[in-house]
Amino acid sequence: MPSHAEMTRAVEEYVAAFGAGNAARIAALFAENAVVEDPVGSEPKRGMAAIAAFYEMSVATGAKLELEGPVRTAADSALFAFSVHLEMQGKPMRIDVIDRFGFDADGKVSSMQAWFGPENMHMLNGSQDHA
Amino acid sequence: MPSHAEMTRAVEEYVAAFGAGNAARIAALFAENAVVEDPVGSEPKRGMAAIAAFYEMSVATGAKLELEGPVRTAADSALFAFSVHLEMQGKPMRIDVIDRFGFDADGKVSSMQAWFGPENMHMLNGSQDHA
Repeated sequence: MPSHAEMTRAVEEYVAAFGAGNAARIAALFAENAVVEDPVGSEPKRGMAAIAAFYEMSVATGAKLELEGPVRTAADSALFAFSVHLEMQGKPMRIDVIDRFGFDADGKVSSMQAWFGPENMHMLNGSQDHA
Repeated sequence: MPSHAEMTRAVEEYVAAFGAGNAARIAALFAENAVVEDPVGSEPKRGMAAIAAFYEMSVATGAKLELEGPVRTAADSALFAFSVHLEMQGKPMRIDVIDRFGFDADGKVSSMQAWFGPENMHMLNGSQDHA
């Protein structure tokens, strides 16, 4: 089972890879047979091909992630709260999310779930934009 | 399925009931057959009697909860990041936690998971204590 430090490093690499707009670096965190449910309630992406395609699309939105608070770990899971910042039709948008990474024995992410809903998505107006 | 507002109210009542030291108010949020895994990896508490006893013990520690950031909801789940503040052998302590509440059709919490580990538990020294 990966350590707290190893799981935390994976989360930090996930955030950094989004910052760099590098979908390959994101996909490299996942196991070949991983399952990604983002958001929870949507059809899961199963396996590396589907996951890599999903992150290509995600990175293409220009989304940047900002961690909020320390990564929590228990057993084989890391949970982390963050906000996503992107532009939608030219307007800045913020989405509040909590993700779970479940790790396999090799330290790869074998399952991922992302919790957010419509009420966690906020179009930012001009004044907030420049705040 | 409960709405975002209903799930968020349940989370806020959970925090408020800890603040009031009222285990009965906490237990009243849960379904009769609920399962509580706190922390993840420990033996789950199953059913109201075990859950009520667990929260009697939790409240007796004097633990107070502080929400950190907005409640995230997706499908039938609410995820929330918070810190727990309590005293351990006379010393102030902070534990960083993320909980998941899963809700049934009646809006009761039917499953709960809490993620935190040893690295999320911090004894606060005197100087931090008074910061």
